[in-house]
Amino acid sequence: MLAACFNADMVTEITLQPVRRHGVDAAILFSDIVVPLKAAGVDVTIVSGVGPVVAAPITSAAGVDAIGELAGVDQIETAVKQLANELGDVPLIGFCGAPFTLASYLIEGGPSRDHAATKAMMWSQPDLWDQLLSRLAEVCGQFLRLQIQAGASAIQVFDSWAGALTRHDYEQRVRPHTQRLLASIADLDVPRIHFGVGTGELLHSMAVPECEVVGIDHRVDLADGIARIGSDHAVQGNLDPAALFADWAVIEAAAEHILAAAGSAQGHIFNLGHGVLPTTDPGVLTRLVEWLHARSATESGMVSV
Amino acid sequence: MLAACFNADMVTEITLQPVRRHGVDAAILFSDIVVPLKAAGVDVTIVSGVGPVVAAPITSAAGVDAIGELAGVDQIETAVKQLANELGDVPLIGFCGAPFTLASYLIEGGPSRDHAATKAMMWSQPDLWDQLLSRLAEVCGQFLRLQIQAGASAIQVFDSWAGALTRHDYEQRVRPHTQRLLASIADLDVPRIHFGVGTGELLHSMAVPECEVVGIDHRVDLADGIARIGSDHAVQGNLDPAALFADWAVIEAAAEHILAAAGSAQGHIFNLGHGVLPTTDPGVLTRLVEWLHARSATESGMVSV
Repeated sequence: MLAACFNADMVTEITLQPVRRHGVDAAILFSDIVVPLKAAGVDVTIVSGVGPVVAAPITSAAGVDAIGELAGVDQIETAVKQLANELGDVPLIGFCGAPFTLASYLIEGGPSRDHAATKAMMWSQPDLWDQLLSRLAEVCGQFLRLQIQAGASAIQVFDSWAGALTRHDYEQRVRPHTQRLLASIADLDVPRIHFGVGTGELLHSMAVPECEVVGIDHRVDLADGIARIGSDHAVQGNLDPAALFADWAVIEAAAEHILAAAGSAQGHIFNLGHGVLPTTDPGVLTRLVEWLHARSATESGMVSV
Repeated sequence: MLAACFNADMVTEITLQPVRRHGVDAAILFSDIVVPLKAAGVDVTIVSGVGPVVAAPITSAAGVDAIGELAGVDQIETAVKQLANELGDVPLIGFCGAPFTLASYLIEGGPSRDHAATKAMMWSQPDLWDQLLSRLAEVCGQFLRLQIQAGASAIQVFDSWAGALTRHDYEQRVRPHTQRLLASIADLDVPRIHFGVGTGELLHSMAVPECEVVGIDHRVDLADGIARIGSDHAVQGNLDPAALFADWAVIEAAAEHILAAAGSAQGHIFNLGHGVLPTTDPGVLTRLVEWLHARSATESGMVSV
């Protein structure tokens, strides 16, 4: 998996597949959240059935210092260039994890349900915490810059685990670093999508001036999410990935519900509320995209799945 | 684990331990969410590192019909009687899963991140879904009745997975069954606590007239949760279990934040926002309970951890 993320032709092919098969309106770079960590010299592997595993979890400033400069990312740069050529008018969305989510993998040593060690560092070692997240914001900023300069026409910052935080902790100890990351690519002038999972409590806080779009997962009613985000941002979302296992009438009703709510937003990217589940029937995705295109022929707004 | 839940002396001892060690103000019956399923004849085991595993996941009405009457629960009845005697003035809180969460285990065959099969049945086979959840509400009602009649002085209905649902689906397809379960023990006149995890979007919907207390997990700011629940219910919660890994000053500040918010509630049970994490230092729990008791000597309200 991680090797594929550093192979230009693999990245290009896997990124193109959903565009070819389903005719979606944008491609998202095939990558993994730990790719910039690997490129910065962290000993991280992806273990099947587990997820990312970090050989030496970070407990001190020495661990932060060991996060080096991005290296060996020329294949990713090549992939983005190839993709920009192949895709033509179809936008390519670049991708990077957010500092908090990457910090959690680095501190816990792998995926965690409770993020206890991460939060303990956040609360009890605030200086070390700020060093770590600052460093991650820099590395992520460089990784996004590379993607945009090679041809990505939008980017998404994915904060998988932000939903584990209270709003207070998110705003005080996490958000400033994500803001710095997003601000660091402001000069490149591409739309910035900010997305997390389980972030119903955080949507208002995530709608920072440094991003143009906020992603909403499927647990939040889209109309509620739009109200929390306010009128300064477009939204992305939020069909439940599990809905694709239901009858077509159910899927259509759920998609109609989303489109009805989206009318009140400052722009809407139709998407699933989280990733496609592995056993999803691809034919259903194709049908959904066709249905959305037929619907949007009479409406405005970008449609992407 | 499951065998221990059906052994009166084990249940009694494990239930009493936190009261003896930490001096909490209430005991909660040691049990597992699948105990009533096992007692109703479902072939379910608890696999270490996995969770409950159901041998024959339910896909049809035959599976629903196979959920029999509660049997072999005399040891649990004995445990509750022993506990009521031993605990004296300390209340014993009975415990049961909610129909949706039990249905998810029965349909998925075990723990699930996405509940895709569960939701597919909910959406595409509404009659079968209603049959299953109705049957589960009956079995759970009988299980709670048994506990109350043997001496439990309050009960908690735990809907672990409700947070995976949108508010619309929760209200339309799940809540009526939970309400029927809660209503079925109304004649026994004990406080009913209704709790789920990741339910920020559902708190208003979970504050049904058939319960007296709504539990709030640690992701929601308690003041926000109280506002969503309204003034007809007491609240329970909501210290982040991960906070117990931080320095004492952090724990105390977090507990103070909760107590300050709780002032606006119609009654408050201090509790963690979810279960105690396995590697928690028990000494920290003892210190927290002592601190809460010292604080509550000058305040009203039940204090329980």
